[in-house]
Amino acid sequence: MDLNKSAPNDVSIDWSKTPLVPAVAQEYYTGEVLMLAYVNEEALNLTLSKGYAHYFSRSRNAIWLKGETSGNLQKIREVRIDCDDDALLYIVEQQGNACHTGELSCFYRKISG
Amino acid sequence: MDLNKSAPNDVSIDWSKTPLVPAVAQEYYTGEVLMLAYVNEEALNLTLSKGYAHYFSRSRNAIWLKGETSGNLQKIREVRIDCDDDALLYIVEQQGNACHTGELSCFYRKISG
Repeated sequence: MDLNKSAPNDVSIDWSKTPLVPAVAQEYYTGEVLMLAYVNEEALNLTLSKGYAHYFSRSRNAIWLKGETSGNLQKIREVRIDCDDDALLYIVEQQGNACHTGELSCFYRKISG
Repeated sequence: MDLNKSAPNDVSIDWSKTPLVPAVAQEYYTGEVLMLAYVNEEALNLTLSKGYAHYFSRSRNAIWLKGETSGNLQKIREVRIDCDDDALLYIVEQQGNACHTGELSCFYRKISG
């Protein structure tokens, strides 16, 4: 990663317009894309303040500390925001596997045309 | 990437339930996460059949061949699907920059707590 620009700490996501934004988790050491989940304002604030990835579970309608039960925590190295302020990139040190299936990455299946 | 499982070609996304799914584009050579956009069934089919990343523009309500006007095409190396069948990973050879700002990646800004 050679990109080092900083956004203002007052994150510019318009939470009233987009209460949930997608967050991509990428492994810091390998670059592997691990998973995609959703984040609300509280989940992002917890991620930034605690240093571990938090998401918002749409099915459980609740904040979710990734790895809280499995132990497969994601230690945050960086949080990045996209040009449109409506997607996040969590660069993490993944403990154990990211996927509940036991695979390292949730993107473990190829599809073809 | 050491993950080589194949999903059936009949992609299991339930398009009636999730007409748009997020797709993450990752650079094949560097592993950099380039952008996140949305894909409908037709965009995915075009991506798989043409070999270049297509998305669905929510603002223009239309299929979008990435780079059609800018020339910054994304040549598909792999398409991966996540464990829940509701997110895609496009692994691409990025021609030029992915971001309309002129940055290589849309995720060019860090945020902090």
